[in-house]
Amino acid sequence: MAGRRLEEYNIVFFPSGLRGTFEPGTGIFEAATRLGVDLATICGGAGECGKCKVVIEEGAEALGPLTPSEEAHLTEEEKRQNYRLACMISLPEGVKRLVIRVPETSRLGAQRLQTEGLEVDVKIDPFVRKYHLIMKRGSLEDDRADEIRLLDYMRDLYGFEDLEIPWEVATIMPKVLREKGGTRGDFNVTVVVYDDKKVIAVEPGDTTDRCYGLAVDIGSTKLAGFLMDLNTGKVVAVSSRMNPQIPYGEDVLSRLTYAKRSMEALKTVQQAVINGINDMITEMCELTGIKPEEIYEGVFVGNTAMQHLFLGIWPKFMSLAPYPAGVRRGMKAPADKLGLKLHPNGYAWFAPIIRGFVGADQVAAELVVDYLEIEDMVLELDIGTNTEITLGNKHNAYCVSCASGPAFEGMMISCGMRASNGAIERIRVDPETRELEYKVITGIWARGIRSCSKYRRTVTKPIGICGSALCDVLPEFVRAGIILPSGQFNKELLDVDPRLRKRPDGQLEYVIVFAEDTAHGKDITISQNDIRELQKAKAAMFTGCYLLMKEMGVTTDDIDELVIAGAFGSFIDPESARTMGMYPEVPLKKIRTIGNAAGTGARMALVSREARKKMEKLADWVKFIEAAIHPDFMKIYPEAMYIPNKNLDLFPETAAILKELGRI
Amino acid sequence: MAGRRLEEYNIVFFPSGLRGTFEPGTGIFEAATRLGVDLATICGGAGECGKCKVVIEEGAEALGPLTPSEEAHLTEEEKRQNYRLACMISLPEGVKRLVIRVPETSRLGAQRLQTEGLEVDVKIDPFVRKYHLIMKRGSLEDDRADEIRLLDYMRDLYGFEDLEIPWEVATIMPKVLREKGGTRGDFNVTVVVYDDKKVIAVEPGDTTDRCYGLAVDIGSTKLAGFLMDLNTGKVVAVSSRMNPQIPYGEDVLSRLTYAKRSMEALKTVQQAVINGINDMITEMCELTGIKPEEIYEGVFVGNTAMQHLFLGIWPKFMSLAPYPAGVRRGMKAPADKLGLKLHPNGYAWFAPIIRGFVGADQVAAELVVDYLEIEDMVLELDIGTNTEITLGNKHNAYCVSCASGPAFEGMMISCGMRASNGAIERIRVDPETRELEYKVITGIWARGIRSCSKYRRTVTKPIGICGSALCDVLPEFVRAGIILPSGQFNKELLDVDPRLRKRPDGQLEYVIVFAEDTAHGKDITISQNDIRELQKAKAAMFTGCYLLMKEMGVTTDDIDELVIAGAFGSFIDPESARTMGMYPEVPLKKIRTIGNAAGTGARMALVSREARKKMEKLADWVKFIEAAIHPDFMKIYPEAMYIPNKNLDLFPETAAILKELGRI
Repeated sequence: MAGRRLEEYNIVFFPSGLRGTFEPGTGIFEAATRLGVDLATICGGAGECGKCKVVIEEGAEALGPLTPSEEAHLTEEEKRQNYRLACMISLPEGVKRLVIRVPETSRLGAQRLQTEGLEVDVKIDPFVRKYHLIMKRGSLEDDRADEIRLLDYMRDLYGFEDLEIPWEVATIMPKVLREKGGTRGDFNVTVVVYDDKKVIAVEPGDTTDRCYGLAVDIGSTKLAGFLMDLNTGKVVAVSSRMNPQIPYGEDVLSRLTYAKRSMEALKTVQQAVINGINDMITEMCELTGIKPEEIYEGVFVGNTAMQHLFLGIWPKFMSLAPYPAGVRRGMKAPADKLGLKLHPNGYAWFAPIIRGFVGADQVAAELVVDYLEIEDMVLELDIGTNTEITLGNKHNAYCVSCASGPAFEGMMISCGMRASNGAIERIRVDPETRELEYKVITGIWARGIRSCSKYRRTVTKPIGICGSALCDVLPEFVRAGIILPSGQFNKELLDVDPRLRKRPDGQLEYVIVFAEDTAHGKDITISQNDIRELQKAKAAMFTGCYLLMKEMGVTTDDIDELVIAGAFGSFIDPESARTMGMYPEVPLKKIRTIGNAAGTGARMALVSREARKKMEKLADWVKFIEAAIHPDFMKIYPEAMYIPNKNLDLFPETAAILKELGRI
Repeated sequence: MAGRRLEEYNIVFFPSGLRGTFEPGTGIFEAATRLGVDLATICGGAGECGKCKVVIEEGAEALGPLTPSEEAHLTEEEKRQNYRLACMISLPEGVKRLVIRVPETSRLGAQRLQTEGLEVDVKIDPFVRKYHLIMKRGSLEDDRADEIRLLDYMRDLYGFEDLEIPWEVATIMPKVLREKGGTRGDFNVTVVVYDDKKVIAVEPGDTTDRCYGLAVDIGSTKLAGFLMDLNTGKVVAVSSRMNPQIPYGEDVLSRLTYAKRSMEALKTVQQAVINGINDMITEMCELTGIKPEEIYEGVFVGNTAMQHLFLGIWPKFMSLAPYPAGVRRGMKAPADKLGLKLHPNGYAWFAPIIRGFVGADQVAAELVVDYLEIEDMVLELDIGTNTEITLGNKHNAYCVSCASGPAFEGMMISCGMRASNGAIERIRVDPETRELEYKVITGIWARGIRSCSKYRRTVTKPIGICGSALCDVLPEFVRAGIILPSGQFNKELLDVDPRLRKRPDGQLEYVIVFAEDTAHGKDITISQNDIRELQKAKAAMFTGCYLLMKEMGVTTDDIDELVIAGAFGSFIDPESARTMGMYPEVPLKKIRTIGNAAGTGARMALVSREARKKMEKLADWVKFIEAAIHPDFMKIYPEAMYIPNKNLDLFPETAAILKELGRI
């Protein structure tokens, strides 16, 4: 879309920015579907469920009056604000442009599920392609077997020399060939070819325009699915939900512990995620009118534990030192045997991993950064319970995994919580006055694992603190002098600042929100232990970066770009992270977030054979450092516990600020 | 075994001729099993069922006294004749040689099922091979994924560069690797590789000496199965039974008619033959102690209808002109999806076919003849309801299929029957006196489709006439002047020969056996219609031969060898066939029968990749003539109705004999 201006399209959706030019009379719901706009529905566009409310920002006056269905579903306030049901309106004749906002409550995936990722330019060259054939029916003079006839036509028309027609396709082929042409007509069929080698389906008539694929990022917490048109490489539908494996273990380790009890337990956990993916497929198919049999391939990424639990690889040993993965290369599995609701002869492909702690999601991020092609020195981090970091360029690259722990996800933190309604998502402390401000998440329409239509009640008072705000704690506290660079609370404030106090167990804690202003009537606090957990997490990440820099012989100045991948990374304040010393002190303008790089990489691998080849290459080529046994680890890690670091030479800018504030 | 004399082996079985040299103390039942001798058992060698009775022809005096089990199972007469139970005796110390006869009642397959075929020399190079690995367990310094470790060892030790480890194997591999070595030891496993490309199993410990395959000839009437050791290429067990599809149609066409009613009907017919094969597998496994999971591949041959009904290919159109086959090339199908009791990751491979009426059984026969290599001009016929004929040498070859009809199998013949107990199998008529002699089949132990232990009662009086005797009818009758060369009964005999008589419907018939000598008390006769059916059958076959000869520009004198393949061909009298003009009048010494060439070809393809490649080549390279639309057909066929032929120049020897007898 580069080069065309907004004005050139007649329907534009916000906040996604998806746009297109449509014939007058096109339904807005249909337009949204065709563009891949994330728009909720239960009834599939029949005006019954009232879920597809949109706000007409521009062009509202050209639309007709409200339909009875809209009268019923819209509140008076919504009517005043130009709300309409997308399924009840269409592009009017003569209107220049409709600008439509999809409010958060009408989006299928809550915004924070970060299904979007970056749009990336790849050459569309998918593994699955369709070829239409019209073949002369046989005669006694030309009594070639159906198989040979089809192969001859595929060779003559499309240049295929050595196609395999597998048994599953061959058995039904004689029937399919004769379905459209009747008993005397030509054979009129579409041949679905996988990897230029194998026919995975023969379909009656010309179905070449319906060729779809699925890309899924399997996070240990969230699933993000993209239904894509393999002919155009465009996303046609998006779906996301919580990973249904969560009941078997909130974190990866406990989930592995559950699964490794027995083959049956493994199957149970595997089936949970397969079911979740199948639900997403059903939802996206209902939304778009695409049939599951029109989806011929799924590409999956996730960490190594997710890989094992999705494919059903026996996971016991990857949870024991030296944490050997069962499979490292990309792994193809037949969709039917896996139980995936794709075309029964279709395939699931789980992208390659690097090690037990550096999974396909990191390889996907490396693909998005494009390490095999770039001259620039790029440091890429995917922050999470394990933080995977890669440093390098096309000449050389290393990666590492740090056990950063779940502190920044709100776990092991006394008032920590997920990024859902009622979570404090930002904290600012005035460095002089210690005046404290915070921001609370409200209005996220959070979806349960199976239910589609439940809203959580909107909460305005805070309940706890989520990761992005926890990320503010260390830098804000140290600048305001609430904690010392060592992480210790500044005891001098004990009698000065009523927020700092001693708990009955003797531990110090700092009150973020007093009970009267919280949803549950209890104080929201940060304790000395919480501070320690955050320090350990950020120290582990910095140590990982440092080990890579040392291995590559690179200083902070040599880093051309610092890329933050992953949902969490998109929400943190890069300056906060840099100030606390989570990563090297590169100029802020060199820091870039790339959102759900795992999902982006999966989409690229789905529509581009080259991208898939690059992933295989990256998984093999990027060198892995085992941080835990690295000789420098025990020197660097304790220094990185300081905020920003004991070695202030590494953080000259931050040191200058803290010095000016008198904190060091 | 060429070059070694009988005297050099210490155990020899008759009538199979299988022999070997064994350590003293080796059980005779075990020796039989290892040599692949067809020897019945129900109890598996425990001395309980009494089925493995053998006759010691040489060396009986060196064996010990009868065991209690033998005392119980052998009759007094049998004891006198040196009968023993094979499972109760072993090779005595110091004895030079045991010569052991396996009586027909102790053989699993009745002799007439023709499981044997020729022994052929092929280089043992099977698709499935096993590789033993002992691998160093990983450490933090060497934390390769299990997959990569295995691939590295396979590359370093055995030179495999690009092995695929499919999903089905990868999922369980981490467990299997650690099964033998315990939690600290080396990984000790055996890798099963298919086609040098794909790992189909990883097994704990060293199992390289247990690697088996199955070869099956799927006849429309009979199944013949061979369990083979893929390391040695030797047959370790043989099994055969009636094709369980018979209830769905005695002949191929009615079976196709049943199957093409619906997909369910097709599945039913398919399942019937799969079940039959599974029963054979079970039987052979019980006999040998081999487990079905140790059988990694099955190679199957049969005609094109059997191919469709075994693989489950929609068969409707191959029974309608122009009779297009669904699949022509060799077709690999996963054993588990097909429902075959082999290793679940194993494969079934159905050999390639040439056309709807020239199936993989004919390609197998062409492989046995070795058309791709021979300089000699060879005419090969597989006689049946359809007779497939190939003519050529390595420079060029053509094949044809003739609708010869089931007359020679006893169908459409008033007193025709299968070759079982009570069937007349030979007829001789004195050309001067018309004195008639016949021979009846007795004592065949015929096995039902599922039951293993039923004997039919021995019949000594005749019931009907089977194919090999029907083959005598035309030549014997024409020589004796009972019929004229045109096939008409010689009406001059009506008052002379009491056997020739007019039926109530006016048709003439000739009595072979009068009612008082038959099992059912009714005359066994040959009618004018029966004669016509036999003429039509042999005329079709000759026409096929003639068309091939014309296409190749070859005369009878140019034919270096005439090869008769198939069970039926083994039982007919080559001279009778030649005299009636079934095939060109080549000297008798040029005629050779090769038995169950389909089974032999299947065995070759199972143990030799080259043989399999040759089959693919043959199926593509041998040119097919459509007899029915050939311009010469209507000229040649009516002439071939005469016995031996209207054109006596083609049959100078037979013409001379008939002239001397005054028949022409």
